[in-house]
Formats: sequence, C-alpha cells, structure tokens
Amino acid sequence: MGKHFDEELRDLNNDILKMGVFAEEAIYRSIEALKNRDKNMAQDVINNDRSIDELELIVDEKCLDLIARHQPMAGDLRFITTGMKINAELERIADIAVDIGQRTLEIVDKPLLKPLIDIPKLAEIAQNMIKMSIDAFIKGDIVLAKKVLASDSGADQLRNVIQKELIEDYMVKDSTTAPRAVQLLLIARFLERICDHTTNIAEDVIYMVQAEVVKHHPEKLK
Amino acid sequence: MGKHFDEELRDLNNDILKMGVFAEEAIYRSIEALKNRDKNMAQDVINNDRSIDELELIVDEKCLDLIARHQPMAGDLRFITTGMKINAELERIADIAVDIGQRTLEIVDKPLLKPLIDIPKLAEIAQNMIKMSIDAFIKGDIVLAKKVLASDSGADQLRNVIQKELIEDYMVKDSTTAPRAVQLLLIARFLERICDHTTNIAEDVIYMVQAEVVKHHPEKLK
Repeated sequence: MGKHFDEELRDLNNDILKMGVFAEEAIYRSIEALKNRDKNMAQDVINNDRSIDELELIVDEKCLDLIARHQPMAGDLRFITTGMKINAELERIADIAVDIGQRTLEIVDKPLLKPLIDIPKLAEIAQNMIKMSIDAFIKGDIVLAKKVLASDSGADQLRNVIQKELIEDYMVKDSTTAPRAVQLLLIARFLERICDHTTNIAEDVIYMVQAEVVKHHPEKLK
Repeated sequence: MGKHFDEELRDLNNDILKMGVFAEEAIYRSIEALKNRDKNMAQDVINNDRSIDELELIVDEKCLDLIARHQPMAGDLRFITTGMKINAELERIADIAVDIGQRTLEIVDKPLLKPLIDIPKLAEIAQNMIKMSIDAFIKGDIVLAKKVLASDSGADQLRNVIQKELIEDYMVKDSTTAPRAVQLLLIARFLERICDHTTNIAEDVIYMVQAEVVKHHPEKLK
C-alpha cells in the first residue's frame, strides 16, 4: 500500500506501455520469422504469448483494485476503464502474432512464393498504429488518435492489393500455389485485423477524452 | 434516478441479453444471406450494425455511471466490469456478421461453389456458443462457461475440414474456383473467430465467478 493514487495511475500508464511494446514486438518477430522462414522464432512467438496473457490479467486486476480502493471520480474512472479495454485489445493483438506464427509454421518448410515486400510493409503500418494509439492514450491526444483512424484506410488498401495479387497472379494462374498463397492471404488479413484493434484503441481514447471535455465544458459541444 | 442498485444491475443483465440476441441474429441472417444468395439481406446485416454499435455505447456508459454513482464493492464491481467486457465482445461479434455480409456480396452474383452444409453447421455452433456464454454470465454458471470452452475445439476442427476441402478439392483442382473459394474460406474463419469471442466471454465469466469464490471462501482454493 502506501502508494498515492496518482502514482498508481502512472503505474497503469507504464503497464499499458509495456503491454504495447510486447504486442508490437510479437508482431515484429512473427513477420521476421515469416521472412526468414525461421521455425524457432515462429515457435518463440507462440510460446511467449503466455507471459503477455499473464500480464494482461495482472493489469486488469490492478485496475479493478484501483477502482475498488479509490472509488475515483468520472475522469479517472473513465481513464482506468479505458485502460482495461486497451489492455484487452493489446492482448488480442499478441494473440494475432501467435496466429501469424502458426501460419508461418505451415509454410516454413516450403520455398517462399515470392520475395515478401507488401506483407512486411503492412506489418510496419500495423506496428506504427499500435505505437501511435498507445501514445494517444497516454497523452490523451485526440489528434494522434485520429491519425490512427486515418491510417486504417491505407492498411485496408494494401491488404486488398496483397489479396488480389495472391488470388489472381498465383492461385488462379498456378493452382499448386494455392496452399501457400492461402497462408499468406490469411497473414495479410491478420495484419489488417491488428490495425482494426488499434482503431478500437484510438476510438476508446477519443471517447475518453471527449466525454471529459463534454462533461466539464458542455459549451464546447455547441 | 430513483432506481435501486439491484434493479439497475438487472437492467444491465437485460442489456447484455439484448446485445447477445442482436449479435446472434446478425450472424444467423448473414449466413441465410449467403445460403440464399440474398443481396438485400446481406446489405441489411451491414446496415443494422449501426444500431448495435449504438447500443454498445449506451450499455458501456450505463456501466460507468453505475460504478460512479454506487461505488460498488468487489463482487458487484467485477460483475459490472465483466459486463463491459462482454458488451464489447458482442459488438465485435456483430462486426464479424458485417464481414460475412461483405464477403457474401462479393460472391452473391456467382453460382455457389457447392451446396453449403458445413458453413451453416459452423454458424449454428457459433450461435449456440453465443447463447451459452451469455447465459453463463447471467447465471454466473461456471459449468456452462466451461461447456463453451469445450465446444471450441469442435468449431476449430470443423473449420479445418472446411478449409482443407476448399483448398484441396477446389482451388488446387480447378484454379478458376479460387476467387469464390477464398471468400468461403474467409467466412469459415470469421465464424471460428466468433467462437473465439464466445470463449473470451466464457473465460471472463469463469474469472468473475472464481475471483469471488476465492475472495469469499479462500479455503476452496486448497
């Protein structure tokens, strides 16, 4: 005990930051494993998920405890419950890194269909969106949160390009590529799903900040 | 105002129940649209999502308000924050119905690859898992929640069967089927993702019930 409420809120910030770094790293490593057809790294990503799951539970429990002990007012309460939601989103993002790791293990023994360019590019967008969305939460920065939302259409477009190419230039032209092409197509969709999770985070941040603005300065609504 | 806390908790129950019914219905209708190649129904599912999104926000806001006004003790607090999480899961499930609707619109003008049997079966499993998980929350029923978790491997297996068939019997044998087969494969994966959301709900329920058991009867841990 003994810690001040403000200090505990700062701790929560750090926990979310840590969850964000873990999630981002898991994505990075899953795509490195795919690029380098590195079975061990893919397996590592899958194994490491346990510790992210554990951290999620710890953070969630801390939040509940914080609410129960301090019975915070509207603004802080909203910050904590938003933290709980973001915590859950980050855990889901890490789960998707596991999905990518599993798809990678399916094709790691076969030659790559083609040099991977767009998939790593999409992964970079996803990682960047994770970073920005967490930053937006910690700073309560609506402008940054809106930047995350704006990035999502670029991710959607790139995923469409990847999907179209895999279907039209590979599966349809040479059906023997289908099993590998399907795995790459799924990985592209997983990455897009990560971007969707970051837009959930950004929306939560906007909602958190705006609700406070509206509550404290109702004139700003007009 | 004027409502008692217990009454408001019952309201929350009803809201979650309603979100569950909406989510389940959206899934059902998206698969009906696919089966009957019904463009209007697919579009309907997509359009209806807005009202589910709105209900999610209302329920979320109610939960925050409930916590802020009543500053509930551990058990009730956990029930409310679990409700918030389940509310978010149900909104995601409805989003997936939109994904299915969109995939359906992509192939609705082409003849079906084959009579759909396994995909509707998987959809039924998913709907059933939604129902059970919500029921488990409302009754605080751990046994039922564990039944949801146990159902998930059946869903995974069925999705594997569907995916294998689409790749090996369609895409590889006749590459012109690839564009349609990919859409069906994605729909099967969407349905599996819904099942995953229901297992998140079930895990939240187990966690909610057990934390209380542990807090109030620590001897049960031994």
